[in-house]
Amino acid sequence: MRILLAPDSYKGSLSAREVALAMETGIQQATNEADVSMQPMADGGEGTLDAILEKSGERLSAKVRGVDGKLKTADYAVIDYGDDRSKTVVVEVAEVVGWGDDASIRTPVLQRQTTGIGDLVLDAISRGYNHFLIGLGGTSTNDCGVGLLHALGVNFLTADGTHLPPIIENMEDLVSIDIENMDQRILRCKLEAMNDVDNPLIGKTGATAVFSPQKGLLESAHEKTDRLIEKVATLLEHAFSLSVMDRPGAGAAGGLGFAFALLGAKQSVQGALTIAKIVKLEDQITNADWVITGEGRTDSQTCSGKAPAIIADLSSKYGVPVTILSGAVDVNSRPELSKIFLGGCFSIAPGPISIEDAIDSTAELASTATFELARLKFQNKIKAEN
Amino acid sequence: MRILLAPDSYKGSLSAREVALAMETGIQQATNEADVSMQPMADGGEGTLDAILEKSGERLSAKVRGVDGKLKTADYAVIDYGDDRSKTVVVEVAEVVGWGDDASIRTPVLQRQTTGIGDLVLDAISRGYNHFLIGLGGTSTNDCGVGLLHALGVNFLTADGTHLPPIIENMEDLVSIDIENMDQRILRCKLEAMNDVDNPLIGKTGATAVFSPQKGLLESAHEKTDRLIEKVATLLEHAFSLSVMDRPGAGAAGGLGFAFALLGAKQSVQGALTIAKIVKLEDQITNADWVITGEGRTDSQTCSGKAPAIIADLSSKYGVPVTILSGAVDVNSRPELSKIFLGGCFSIAPGPISIEDAIDSTAELASTATFELARLKFQNKIKAEN
Repeated sequence: MRILLAPDSYKGSLSAREVALAMETGIQQATNEADVSMQPMADGGEGTLDAILEKSGERLSAKVRGVDGKLKTADYAVIDYGDDRSKTVVVEVAEVVGWGDDASIRTPVLQRQTTGIGDLVLDAISRGYNHFLIGLGGTSTNDCGVGLLHALGVNFLTADGTHLPPIIENMEDLVSIDIENMDQRILRCKLEAMNDVDNPLIGKTGATAVFSPQKGLLESAHEKTDRLIEKVATLLEHAFSLSVMDRPGAGAAGGLGFAFALLGAKQSVQGALTIAKIVKLEDQITNADWVITGEGRTDSQTCSGKAPAIIADLSSKYGVPVTILSGAVDVNSRPELSKIFLGGCFSIAPGPISIEDAIDSTAELASTATFELARLKFQNKIKAEN
Repeated sequence: MRILLAPDSYKGSLSAREVALAMETGIQQATNEADVSMQPMADGGEGTLDAILEKSGERLSAKVRGVDGKLKTADYAVIDYGDDRSKTVVVEVAEVVGWGDDASIRTPVLQRQTTGIGDLVLDAISRGYNHFLIGLGGTSTNDCGVGLLHALGVNFLTADGTHLPPIIENMEDLVSIDIENMDQRILRCKLEAMNDVDNPLIGKTGATAVFSPQKGLLESAHEKTDRLIEKVATLLEHAFSLSVMDRPGAGAAGGLGFAFALLGAKQSVQGALTIAKIVKLEDQITNADWVITGEGRTDSQTCSGKAPAIIADLSSKYGVPVTILSGAVDVNSRPELSKIFLGGCFSIAPGPISIEDAIDSTAELASTATFELARLKFQNKIKAEN
């Protein structure tokens, strides 16, 4: 019995890898006859590196600036990618400006910088890489990539030519942008951005309006911030002679989507699908007798291209039973969900429980629930073993 | 694929029969190839009649007094019981003085009477029955059976010989008890009481101390009530020349256990086991390929003789997979539970949810959860059907 554990993260609680490990514990408690493999999944945001490096690829590290400007270490991956199997760097921006890191907690949102992403890209370029796949998502920043661009040599100037530090809050005094000194190597790179949102940079569905509240920006500052970003972006578009701020995904990762678009990145909105291809998910599924996936909350949005839906599609294609075990399952979405998760749709909740208590013991609950699912599925087999 | 649905009630939410029906809906949504049968379970308390009448037996009705003394209709069952298959009346006291009935809500606990149980017994006796199986449990009363005994002809007298109405609150003035006019037919009957508690009538583990709070008796009245019941019970014991108030189960059903013991009832503390025998559960299980049971909350107490444990034991004995689906499953009891529920131990909770919300949609949640369990268990089969 070959079981593939391929959950996405339980956001706000466990990484995809931690979920997979908890599931593995449950399977092992139920039977010692199972051949368990795991493939943590991601959508291009947090957990992208873990997902990609689970089976192959090389993990490299770079010294980069964090959101507070202080040096820290961030990882990236090098994989063989695409039809030509060319060496490709995978960047997970959350490694540098991640939503949950300590520096973000200490730094106000409009002071958080993205320079470290530029540092990381330059580290890879200086090692000779020129093909990048950038996972946008899970960021604490909302600077429309000012930090990234500055690290690559773009200068932000006041009326009297003073260089502004690359922090969005400082851009009130911005009058002109100089890209003369930009590192030209970046423009010769092939860039591909992965994101799972298609928001534009500004406006009602833009980065600030939609994503800054969860990053800690008070609502009273939204309008002013959106106008500031519009000013900066307009000057940047002018400097790069490109118009990309309305492009779907420009608002991803606090506007890093916009900045990478200026640098010529191709935008791919189906991060999970890209990752599925990279990790050869199809092969992994055809080698399994049962697939278990999962995510923090499963609802009708899951069906539109999220990792568990991609897993369900591939599993159905090859007739491999697929079960989803999530933190929570939206009751109203059951009809849709039952069409794709043919092997059942379960929550780890052991009964009425608060979100806080569930989060406090997610790993244990996920283990136990997997144990029970395995018992139900293999009961006769388990009985025979004893 | 023959599936036996044999849940106990989800107490405070759904009757065992309602749970079984909800589960059946879930199975039917998952597959039309299943041969589903149901056997609602009970422990001798609420739901006993439903359990017993599911497969055989006759349902009769009697006009009886409710807890407020007003006439109402209550059912009882007649079955073939015991080695001699003699016609036996099954009484569910909750049918007459049930915890959730409207009259109980309107009547203060110490004014609630149990006369209707005597009415019901006499109705059966006058139809010629003389063998009784009495399911104690789920009552709103705490009168040590004063009402029952009065209906059978026992008189409660003051110092001047005034007859007291058969309400425990009135027994302050009780001085003597007269059993001269008792209906002698009851003493020729064979009585067997089923209960799942072994509490004595009075004291720290007695009926008042342990069960009256959930019936609405204020704590400030506990001691006085316990002393009042002790006085009544002492006079009753004297009148009947029997000493039964310390017997395990005398405190069942607000002291109805005590009153039936005075009438010569044999006490059986394993109601669920008795019901399992009556409904020939063993035969039903051997005819099934999968058994699903359930209850409101599953914890370590479940393992000590509750209906789901009896079902699990019998299922294991015959190698039939048994799964439990309950309102909630106690996380700390999992090690114990997993030893008996070899086919998995699940909750209907779809994620973090409050008890109130879970209770509001128990039937729907139970249906959905059963649907998902069936999908997991039969996925390949279901796929083949489509």
